[in-house]
Amino acid sequence: MQHEIERKFLVASDAWRAGADSGRRLRQAYLAETGRAAIRVRVVDGSSAVLTVKSAAAGASREEYEYPIPLADADALIELSSGGVLDKTRFRVPHAGRTWEVDVYSGDNEGLVVAEVEIEDAAAKVEPPPWVGREVTDDRRYYAASLAKRPYRLWSDSDRRRSA
Amino acid sequence: MQHEIERKFLVASDAWRAGADSGRRLRQAYLAETGRAAIRVRVVDGSSAVLTVKSAAAGASREEYEYPIPLADADALIELSSGGVLDKTRFRVPHAGRTWEVDVYSGDNEGLVVAEVEIEDAAAKVEPPPWVGREVTDDRRYYAASLAKRPYRLWSDSDRRRSA
Repeated sequence: MQHEIERKFLVASDAWRAGADSGRRLRQAYLAETGRAAIRVRVVDGSSAVLTVKSAAAGASREEYEYPIPLADADALIELSSGGVLDKTRFRVPHAGRTWEVDVYSGDNEGLVVAEVEIEDAAAKVEPPPWVGREVTDDRRYYAASLAKRPYRLWSDSDRRRSA
Repeated sequence: MQHEIERKFLVASDAWRAGADSGRRLRQAYLAETGRAAIRVRVVDGSSAVLTVKSAAAGASREEYEYPIPLADADALIELSSGGVLDKTRFRVPHAGRTWEVDVYSGDNEGLVVAEVEIEDAAAKVEPPPWVGREVTDDRRYYAASLAKRPYRLWSDSDRRRSA
């Protein structure tokens, strides 16, 4: 079990690309999401896969249980998922002693770019890079499980303006 | 992936006990159940655990994906489950060239005893042992995920009479 505490921000410019690695392609879907847990299947770079159970978010903190599974199972499990499939490329970007992850969505969430940073405890000080915008840690619309159900493509213009 | 085809029967007498092994204690709960999949955590004899995804039942046939997980994870995942925890002892009983599994429930499902047999295809001939009663393969009330939500203890007297 991992105890995961993350903060999430919108991305305001492309300046992060200068410091980024070459990225990993993530394809993922949710088998289920209850008030208590989300169960996710994720394929990484089309070559490995994991099944993950995350406890329901209580603020920025979640418990996470992750198990490697065969790639063929992952493809079949994605067929059993509820909601859509998320496609994104995740880049790692070092900043101020932390590693930020920038998710560039494609497919139904094309146009959405978010940055996450994992922290050691909820009180930890984070120095946001100059290329991030508004914090969306507590905004459920940006939870990956939410994006699988209601992708960015379907958001209203006013929702998107609030995003900027 | 396993392709699981099972038939399930109520148990009409204790005669199965003569041919049974010593049984395994199963403690299980459902993280989620959607129209497409059920995600189950199971602890066997308090000493090993598996996380299982089953496709939604289409008659007697289901796909099943099973992964071993650490026992400590299983205990934590059971805390994240929806519905109750099922406790049962599963006995193996050979009959007419097949292995039958007899589940004797305890806890909230005390009083319920069902027998299952796995078959190679839906058309396979099954010779039910003399100690089984009515077939309940297609009766959703007897699905384990249903029993976790609406245990036998809560069934009405007329439901139970129909069970006999």
